[in-house]
Order: sequence, then C-alpha cells, then structure tokens
Amino acid sequence: MKIDVLTLFPKMVEVPLHESIVGKAIEAGKLDAEVTDFRQYSTNKHGNVDDYPYGGGAGMLLTPQPIFDAMEHVKSQNNQSAGRVILVDPGGKKFDQAMAEDFAKEEHLTFICGHYEGYDERIKTLVDDEVSLGDFVITGGELAALTMIDATVRLLPSILGNQESAVGDSFSTGLLEFPQYTRPEDFRGLKVPSILLSGNHGKIDEWRRTQSLKKTLERRPDLLKTAPLSPEDQKILRELQTPDM
Amino acid sequence: MKIDVLTLFPKMVEVPLHESIVGKAIEAGKLDAEVTDFRQYSTNKHGNVDDYPYGGGAGMLLTPQPIFDAMEHVKSQNNQSAGRVILVDPGGKKFDQAMAEDFAKEEHLTFICGHYEGYDERIKTLVDDEVSLGDFVITGGELAALTMIDATVRLLPSILGNQESAVGDSFSTGLLEFPQYTRPEDFRGLKVPSILLSGNHGKIDEWRRTQSLKKTLERRPDLLKTAPLSPEDQKILRELQTPDM
Repeated sequence: MKIDVLTLFPKMVEVPLHESIVGKAIEAGKLDAEVTDFRQYSTNKHGNVDDYPYGGGAGMLLTPQPIFDAMEHVKSQNNQSAGRVILVDPGGKKFDQAMAEDFAKEEHLTFICGHYEGYDERIKTLVDDEVSLGDFVITGGELAALTMIDATVRLLPSILGNQESAVGDSFSTGLLEFPQYTRPEDFRGLKVPSILLSGNHGKIDEWRRTQSLKKTLERRPDLLKTAPLSPEDQKILRELQTPDM
Repeated sequence: MKIDVLTLFPKMVEVPLHESIVGKAIEAGKLDAEVTDFRQYSTNKHGNVDDYPYGGGAGMLLTPQPIFDAMEHVKSQNNQSAGRVILVDPGGKKFDQAMAEDFAKEEHLTFICGHYEGYDERIKTLVDDEVSLGDFVITGGELAALTMIDATVRLLPSILGNQESAVGDSFSTGLLEFPQYTRPEDFRGLKVPSILLSGNHGKIDEWRRTQSLKKTLERRPDLLKTAPLSPEDQKILRELQTPDM
C-alpha cells in the first residue's frame, strides 16, 4: 500500500508514522508512506497558504493553489494518480471500523490535512471522501489522519503478529469487551475473579459473554441495536434489566 | 494546566506534543506536559509489561504493576495527585466536544495509553474516566490521547490567536459548516459563488445558513435533532425536503 499525506506540519506526521504498527509495516516493505509539506508548493512570494474568506467572517482559509499543485506532485510520482483522496474535515462522514476496512482494500490513499483554518471549497473537487474523526474540534487534520492510517494499516494482511491478533478486537463482536485479568492472582489485595481460575471453559465463556452484555448495556446501549445477539444473549439482557427483588 | 501521559511509545507522544497548538501552549507557559514510559517502572527483570490472560484467549494484557508504579511517580511529582485520570480504551465513553470542554476546566489530566493489548481490569481502579476516540480499533492509545489533548488545550483561555478563532467552529452552531471561499475569484476555471462577492451581508448570511442546513441534512441529519433551530431554519429545512416540481 502507498499512503501520501499533505500537511503543513510534516514533523508531526513523520515521527508517529515511523513508530508502532505503521512503522513496522514500512520496515516490512508492506507500506510506502510519503509526507508532503504543501507550503513548499505555494507560488506566493511569502509562502502563504491561507487568505481571508469572501463574504466576511472570522478565521482564514487554505487557498486552492498550494494543495492543487502538491496533488499534481503526488500524481506525478504515482502514475498520474493520487489513489483515493481523503480530506480530513469535521464536516465529513464520521470515521469508523467499516471505513477502515474499506480503506484497507485500496492500493493508494492520499490524506489532505488542514490546520487551524477551513478549506476553500474548491479544494473538495480533488477529493473522493471527506472524513471526520468525531464530533470534536482539533487544530489540524494531522492527528486524525494518523489515527485513520493506524486503523487502516493494522488491517493489512500479515501486519499484526499473533500477539496483537485482530481476532477478539473490540467491535468485532459488536459488543464492548469483557473484563480481562493477567498475573498476579492477587495484586496488592486486588484479586482475579475466581471463575477465571476455574479451568471450566464453558463457565468462563458464559461469564465473559454476560460481562460483555452488561458493560455494553450500561455504557453503549446503542451497540445492542446492531450487534448479532443469540436467544441466550437476549435472555441474559432481559435478566440484566430486571430489577432485583 | 499540567498533562501527564503514560505510554510505552514516548517518542510517538513527545514529538507531536511539541508541535502545533499544544507546543505553542507549552512555549507560552500555559501547559506543562510530561511523558512517562511506564516500561521503566516494570520490576520484571526483562522489563516485561504484559502477560497472558487468565481464562484463556488471544492477545496479551498489560499487567497492573508497571502502571501502578508509574502512577505513583506521577503523584510524587504533583502533590500526591494525578489529577483527573483518563484511560484511553475502546470500551470507554465516546470523546466529544462537551468532554473536551469538561477536560479544559481541570488543572491536571493524566492519560494512560495502552498499546496492542488490553488492560488488566485492576488498572481501572486508578482511573476516573475510560474514554474512547470512536468506534474503530487502533493499535495504541497514543494518537487518541494526543487528539484529546489537542481538542482540550485549544480551549484554554488565550491559547488560540485571532486567526484561529474558536468562534464559528464546526459544532459551535450544532450544524456543519457552510462552504467557504478565498482568493482568487477564479481559480483555474473554478469560480467563487457570486453572492459572496455581492457585499450584501444579509443575503450572504442567509445563503450561508441555508448551505449549513442543507449540508447537515444531507450528511449528518442526527445533528438536526439537537441543533438550536429558529422558525426560519425550520422553514428552510421544510423547503429543502420538498421534492422539486
């Protein structure tokens, strides 16, 4: 996979990109990542990349020229294609696991990150997807792009080792994860639930499923609308919702 | 404000933390940020921080000891308090702008970031909030913590300059932002809508509001349930939903 990132803060992208799972994918030759500082493409003599909005209003907007020309550079390096082009923008579609799975099928992704300002609307003519990380405001698209890249790259075949298995991931069951414990059995007086030490795998599975359902019911009841639930799960949920006598 | 971050990937946190708005806040003396590698607190002779889950299952879990002891270090540096402690976890409450506003009121925040693995449940006894960035899986909490820190720090008084005003932010109106344009009027044949060049501010405001409502209706109709809407907005929405004759 090839990933391009257009940004005004290349260092903010490059260092995290070479750490962790994404760095491993680059080292393993599974990913080629290039970061482009689009300020370098500004034809303005001061290297400006923003200007005031037409019609008035607070804040500055990224002008089209530097981003258009940086995109031409990306295309010239990749057989005249920038692949699937993603604009990181709070007005976009909300990023989720399904989108990460979709991105992981692409050969080439290009992320355009704004910073502080909004975009001149014409920049969107270059773009396939406008994507938002969530309902909050951050000063730039860099951390959002890095997060989307991490979520995508870890899904590429043979990226995650056994230790970091994607099986049993949060969201793969559609429910929140059950509580987990490792050694020691007694840590400063805090004990592991005895069921997990019982060796009875049927009982352990049942306990875990019940805990998952309980946590999801308490914290994210919205997930229960879409999670695949067995008749046994439905029964557990009904019991959990029955007030104690 | 003081922010502590506990992580196994300190470099991944430190570099972005010193860039952009968060770096500016540090330079201006408005923020003191410390990154702690909790592997350094492992009493295991190999520096291990994870172990197999009790009761079986894939993946490794972070053991309590290194994180408990790293938290003691944080407390020892901060009058025996770690402030508000946030565990970055996909099973937590979803981060949003209201939570960023809440975090911005605190004097001290400590973020605990896992990586690859889950947490031993007993780690949660140290924690005030379990927070998730969204419904997707990433390999570590670092990018999520950095994102939450950015969203929080930009809300601190006198952090954002005029240029980067928080007024008119996405979400401050409860709607998606209207399209914006800057110079030139004609960029390679792509033109600025003439209304924005008219100088008629009443008409411009009306156009912008209609565009905001239209974009929100198309992309994020969920936001219309909570956005404050005037009778005029309601009328515009009804017209937008009426099929053309």
